[in-house]
Amino acid sequence: MAKYVYLFKEGSAKMRNLLGGKGANLAEMTNIGLPVPQGFTVTTEACTRYYEDGQTIAPEIEKEIYQALENTEKIAGKKFGDLENPFLVSVRSGSRASMPGMMDTILNLGLNDVAVEGLAKLTGNPRFAYDSYRRFIEMFAGVVMEVERKHFAAELDAVKNEKGVTGDTDLNADDMKEVARRFKDVYNKHKGEDFPQEPKVQLMESIKAVFRSWDNPRAIYYRRMNDIPSDWGTAVNVQAMVFGNMGDDSGTGVAFTRNPSTGEKKLYGEYLMNAQGEDVVAGIRTPNHISTMADAMPEVYKQFTTIATNLENHYRDMQDMEFTIEKGKLYMLQTRNGKRTAAAALKIAVDLVDEGRLTEEEAVLKVDPRQLDTLLHPNFDTAALEKAEVIAAGLPASPGAGSGQVYFTAKDAARAAKEGKAVVLVREETTPEDIEGMDLSKAILTARGGMTSHAAVVARGMGRPAVVGCHDIVINEEKKLMTTNKGLVFHEGDAISLDGGTGKVYKGSVPTVEAQVTGDFATLMAWADKARRLKVRTNADTPRETIQAVEFGAEGIGLCRTEHMFFEASRIAAVREMILSDTQEQRKAALNKILPVQQKDFEEMYKALEGKPMTVRYLDPPLHEFLPAKSMTDEIADLARELNTTSEKIVEKIDALHEFNPMMGHRGCRLSVTFPEIAEMQTRAVIQAALKVRRETGLQVKPEIMIPLIGTRKELAFVKQIVLDTAEKIFAEQGERMEFQVGTMMEIPRACVVADEIAKEADFFSFGTNDLTQMGFGFSRDDAGKFLDSYYENRILEADPFARLDQEGIGKLVEMAVKLGREGRPGLKLGICGEHGGDPSSVEFFHKVGLDYVSCSPFRVPIARLAAAHAAINEKMEKKA
Amino acid sequence: MAKYVYLFKEGSAKMRNLLGGKGANLAEMTNIGLPVPQGFTVTTEACTRYYEDGQTIAPEIEKEIYQALENTEKIAGKKFGDLENPFLVSVRSGSRASMPGMMDTILNLGLNDVAVEGLAKLTGNPRFAYDSYRRFIEMFAGVVMEVERKHFAAELDAVKNEKGVTGDTDLNADDMKEVARRFKDVYNKHKGEDFPQEPKVQLMESIKAVFRSWDNPRAIYYRRMNDIPSDWGTAVNVQAMVFGNMGDDSGTGVAFTRNPSTGEKKLYGEYLMNAQGEDVVAGIRTPNHISTMADAMPEVYKQFTTIATNLENHYRDMQDMEFTIEKGKLYMLQTRNGKRTAAAALKIAVDLVDEGRLTEEEAVLKVDPRQLDTLLHPNFDTAALEKAEVIAAGLPASPGAGSGQVYFTAKDAARAAKEGKAVVLVREETTPEDIEGMDLSKAILTARGGMTSHAAVVARGMGRPAVVGCHDIVINEEKKLMTTNKGLVFHEGDAISLDGGTGKVYKGSVPTVEAQVTGDFATLMAWADKARRLKVRTNADTPRETIQAVEFGAEGIGLCRTEHMFFEASRIAAVREMILSDTQEQRKAALNKILPVQQKDFEEMYKALEGKPMTVRYLDPPLHEFLPAKSMTDEIADLARELNTTSEKIVEKIDALHEFNPMMGHRGCRLSVTFPEIAEMQTRAVIQAALKVRRETGLQVKPEIMIPLIGTRKELAFVKQIVLDTAEKIFAEQGERMEFQVGTMMEIPRACVVADEIAKEADFFSFGTNDLTQMGFGFSRDDAGKFLDSYYENRILEADPFARLDQEGIGKLVEMAVKLGREGRPGLKLGICGEHGGDPSSVEFFHKVGLDYVSCSPFRVPIARLAAAHAAINEKMEKKA
Repeated sequence: MAKYVYLFKEGSAKMRNLLGGKGANLAEMTNIGLPVPQGFTVTTEACTRYYEDGQTIAPEIEKEIYQALENTEKIAGKKFGDLENPFLVSVRSGSRASMPGMMDTILNLGLNDVAVEGLAKLTGNPRFAYDSYRRFIEMFAGVVMEVERKHFAAELDAVKNEKGVTGDTDLNADDMKEVARRFKDVYNKHKGEDFPQEPKVQLMESIKAVFRSWDNPRAIYYRRMNDIPSDWGTAVNVQAMVFGNMGDDSGTGVAFTRNPSTGEKKLYGEYLMNAQGEDVVAGIRTPNHISTMADAMPEVYKQFTTIATNLENHYRDMQDMEFTIEKGKLYMLQTRNGKRTAAAALKIAVDLVDEGRLTEEEAVLKVDPRQLDTLLHPNFDTAALEKAEVIAAGLPASPGAGSGQVYFTAKDAARAAKEGKAVVLVREETTPEDIEGMDLSKAILTARGGMTSHAAVVARGMGRPAVVGCHDIVINEEKKLMTTNKGLVFHEGDAISLDGGTGKVYKGSVPTVEAQVTGDFATLMAWADKARRLKVRTNADTPRETIQAVEFGAEGIGLCRTEHMFFEASRIAAVREMILSDTQEQRKAALNKILPVQQKDFEEMYKALEGKPMTVRYLDPPLHEFLPAKSMTDEIADLARELNTTSEKIVEKIDALHEFNPMMGHRGCRLSVTFPEIAEMQTRAVIQAALKVRRETGLQVKPEIMIPLIGTRKELAFVKQIVLDTAEKIFAEQGERMEFQVGTMMEIPRACVVADEIAKEADFFSFGTNDLTQMGFGFSRDDAGKFLDSYYENRILEADPFARLDQEGIGKLVEMAVKLGREGRPGLKLGICGEHGGDPSSVEFFHKVGLDYVSCSPFRVPIARLAAAHAAINEKMEKKA
Repeated sequence: MAKYVYLFKEGSAKMRNLLGGKGANLAEMTNIGLPVPQGFTVTTEACTRYYEDGQTIAPEIEKEIYQALENTEKIAGKKFGDLENPFLVSVRSGSRASMPGMMDTILNLGLNDVAVEGLAKLTGNPRFAYDSYRRFIEMFAGVVMEVERKHFAAELDAVKNEKGVTGDTDLNADDMKEVARRFKDVYNKHKGEDFPQEPKVQLMESIKAVFRSWDNPRAIYYRRMNDIPSDWGTAVNVQAMVFGNMGDDSGTGVAFTRNPSTGEKKLYGEYLMNAQGEDVVAGIRTPNHISTMADAMPEVYKQFTTIATNLENHYRDMQDMEFTIEKGKLYMLQTRNGKRTAAAALKIAVDLVDEGRLTEEEAVLKVDPRQLDTLLHPNFDTAALEKAEVIAAGLPASPGAGSGQVYFTAKDAARAAKEGKAVVLVREETTPEDIEGMDLSKAILTARGGMTSHAAVVARGMGRPAVVGCHDIVINEEKKLMTTNKGLVFHEGDAISLDGGTGKVYKGSVPTVEAQVTGDFATLMAWADKARRLKVRTNADTPRETIQAVEFGAEGIGLCRTEHMFFEASRIAAVREMILSDTQEQRKAALNKILPVQQKDFEEMYKALEGKPMTVRYLDPPLHEFLPAKSMTDEIADLARELNTTSEKIVEKIDALHEFNPMMGHRGCRLSVTFPEIAEMQTRAVIQAALKVRRETGLQVKPEIMIPLIGTRKELAFVKQIVLDTAEKIFAEQGERMEFQVGTMMEIPRACVVADEIAKEADFFSFGTNDLTQMGFGFSRDDAGKFLDSYYENRILEADPFARLDQEGIGKLVEMAVKLGREGRPGLKLGICGEHGGDPSSVEFFHKVGLDYVSCSPFRVPIARLAAAHAAINEKMEKKA
């Protein structure tokens, strides 16, 4: 029979999947003898059961919980609801992956009309006891019973009014007692029953609330962003309360074993004396730097630094710790591998290898590929920055440069971002509700909060630049404006820039420059390259992109989209002439004008690649994309003049080319079937360029020609024959030959199921997972936005299938095509060039199914290299295990 | 080693696949001792080899041909190119399936400057000999060497001019000799070499020409229309020439053992004395009825009638025979199962059973299911049709004959029809808005769209004749006229007729005759029903269609498309109100208006079905289809008034609903995910109607609810839960329960590969092969017409995948889903309700993969029943063999 509840002393760090991260680490800390307030963990499997059982806790699990509670009471020497020595607990969520602030927490559980007196007696502080009680009532009512907090706030205000005071601190013990009484009335009024006095009832309801919060919208959104499956579930940690606000010999704080922004090896953190955890986060009082504790409480500081060092050595990673000091005694409430910036992650990983703590491969696994994004993106142009006007400064919470239009609510920010605007989210302070708006913003600015505030932690996790605790600004959310202390006013939509590395905020949009790749980065990537099996190519259409990608480590071009070359102003006229042709002769004449420029494109690309391979995809989009829209009458008139025809004729052609579902229309290889002369011209451009570059540079050039949108073997055979015939003509004309390959995109579902047949005509397959996802799912990428949000909300889909490959469905088509393709042609080369080529979880999948390479946009090349290394190392470790 | 050439005496009727139909039957006739001019057959495999070997005949095959030639010369006692007794042969194609006139024939092969003299001597008729020679030169040059015939015609005219005569018959032997001489010059001029004098060269080139003609455009087209795979190839029959034009004791003719129009058991045919086959076909002389031969040549006639009876008995089917009488001696040149009308097919099949020649199951196989179509629709009066002027031709989208006055909008057509006029609706292409106008028209003609366009699908469903994609006409809707490519103009109100079985459009009203469903039809269908395993249901949306389908033998409704019910004028307002709602409350209010009418629809359907099952598909199309087009400003203004809103707001909504690829957009189950209230309303309508009809009639009603466009298991689970919850509410309200099923359309490629998962939520699958073909192939049905012709021409596709299921690709997805589905849920019910449900070859496929039923439009139900019987009987026979 499954065991659903574990005392901390029964668990270990290895039981992360079952106990969640927090629970596993509490158990581990208990086992290695650290001072941890004791408690127990209700497992993630209990959460899954809870949902399976129709959102109820099964009797056998309830029994286990009560048993664990009894054991914990014994350890603490306290009893639930006791008048002398009441046992109080916190109830916190803790899933397998860290989900900071996404789910619910309940503190001070166990307080009731009796225990509050016990707490008052025990602490000698009745005001503190009743303040705790009224907070617990409000928290329980809000989190567990869904009574809106505003009802409680109103009652608190009423008491303050009656007393004629404005601050909470002006209320004395009797006032707090009155507040608690009134809060119970509010509870009764809204729930139709008394506030539960039985601590076991409080506990059981709170556990259920944590389970429920696994499915709240912000948790769902966070999971989607971070590839966390919904069936993991959350564990619940029930832990004895300790109090950092019991006087001047008490306190609480958070600390990192190394600097999470830079990676510097030095204890980093903040603490507050006579305070609880929420005070540190709330930013009402300014916390002290952790180092000052050395003077304030030398004994405790010494104990803490020793523990910190031990924990880092134990976990072999930088730790993020929470602690509380209760009447001079140190308690560890949590430790976990700390979130860090990309730069810090690289430095820490490399340092840990230097320190002999990690092997190179272990170090590679310590850096999340998705994080690299921030390293590769631009910083402010120094010259421009000098001229920019600093309007405010705050804490440098998450590095990087960001500019955009200011918006004052997460909703407004999200909406504007979806309209394509660059957005800076400006908030008094952020809450977990704001998660989507934060994700969609270029940068985040808050007026309050410290380096470990919600905004700071989340922004660092996202790699989003952030400045927090910026006291130089005053925000008026209602009027949608902010005022700086110099009197400058910024309305919604005005542009600002901010540097999350310096904490400075600038007026207007400051221009940016490319990022510098540091030594740690190069070191780690070299280790990654040693470990990976997958090759990494890039999707690039210009020499500039190619050079950038090669700098980032691309081993060739996996997708050169020739249509992008057609759109350039200098050649679009000839392209349009080709499209508007009535006869094959006219079309060929127009294509002859395009040939030399297209050939020149390829020559430059081959030179930029210096011998690395390039896969050229033949013209793919429907032809109407190259014509002006019908509504652009001026442009049509110009075009008519240029081509010596009439506007009417052009409009007629636009109408004729109109398609109901262009994504499934006359495009891809279908263009070459109806107009073989297009494939002929493109073959000439590719082969003639390759021959010329080989002659001029001596580079070994081996063209790879890729036919898009193939659905049947005969279709590929037909287009391939055009390519082969044209190539032979060129070889005869020029008196020299070269090897080249002809392959196909795999992007039509039918092609995947007959891949053995298609492979007989193909030298390689490259999966076009964008189109394969569109057609496999029947989701038009341009239209699905309208309904996909409902899919996420209802947990039908957990991730955007265009960002993260749907491995169960579309992935099955890929696997099938891999297997059949290699059956049809042993040694067939296999790659992928859809958007998913730069998505780490998808890269892992492509590694597993045995592709030869992935290809992605230049800025994602390092991400793909690292993800490929992760896949290879993880596979090796699994095999060992 | 494969044998590529068979003497007639080496083959048999069973070797049809190898020898082709003609070759197999010549062999069979030889074996049963009939007088057949001897020869040999080059096999279909030699044809396949020919293409594999890059259009050359391999040396070993050439060797076999020469060996067979030598043997044949010995049998005939003649020699190629001989001055005394020259051996002449015909070279004819002959594939596995009959392809009348599609491929090339060469007669009199073997003639050269020497043999022509031999022939003159032998026949005592030099004019005949030189006429034969010059014809052979022209035929060889034209068919084999691709010299245009006009060059020969010009030379013949020149000789006649010089002689001052006009007719060929005015030329004497010397003139013909001159013509032959000049023809050889023409040949030399165009080919740069002499006309080949060596008969073996003539033979080998002619065989190659027959192989090549397998791939000529008309053969490709014929194969596509008749589901003949291109890899079957054609055989070549080389046969000793006999001459029906050697005098008054010679002749030639064709005859059927029964009347191919009516099926009457009586010899039916024609012959001409002193003539060759082409003279009978050319129609210059009027042939005699076969019965007159009894007087003209009683001995030969007696011999022929005996042979005819024997052949029919031997083949146990009506025979179509060609014969020649050379100097009083009868030769059989061909026999085959004769083509016949649908009525004749039924009569002959039933008669042959009565005569004890066939079993019932064998008789069922004698009737081609596709033929039944013509029996079920009115047809033009044959005599009148011959006189009618063809003005245009398009795709034969829905069979039957229709005449009436043309109208260019559905509204105008409906109005005229309501005034009692016979109307033909002529549209650029139809939209769901046009439903009423289409229903009230006698026939439908569209300029655009393919065999599965909206017009085609709806017309077939309605049993309304339709010709679609008719590029010969240009429609000017504004001026209310259409112009044909011959310049004829038809205004509103002018009469035209069209034949939806042939695609032809005629000027004026051609009179029609009602189709007669004869007793033979009923008899044969009863035999078919006994034999088949597949159930046959119908796609029907109205009680009228339902009753029609049940008359045609439908065993239930496999697809009731609820959206068609939404378009009716009386309810479209509420539907539009629902779509234009801003809140869920407004939407629910509008849905409440639709509920009673939709429920009434279902009540009527259930009553019409009298206890047979009905599968109701929930709302499928994108919502914008229910709104007027943006250009219809008047209608939008009306709608705004009606709904108490503004035109601007409606246009805004139309814009918001616009999709780039609506086929892969917000439709199907996605509507129920975003607007669960739609599924709730439809569940109410289905279940409440079923309960009511059960109460009122006592019929056993068991609703089958079908959720369209499912791609994932969770999606189905989500919508199913809405259905189950709503049903439970109704059962509680009404105090009675009923069983019902919830299943899904399988039409998304992804669904097929995860069918085991989806089956866990589904009581049944119904394959939506239209959408599955669209997304599986990435072919937009409405757009593919633009490029599919190129696909047929280039042999990339052999059939329209929307008309005939692509068994290799899309079929593989179906098979996969069948297998996985039954793994996921043993006993899962499986059907198909796409257009392919009425296509015989597809029905056979669905039988083989093990579906439980097919569902098709009412007029296709008998076709599907017969096709299902064919599949079952063929399978049984294969197992026996």
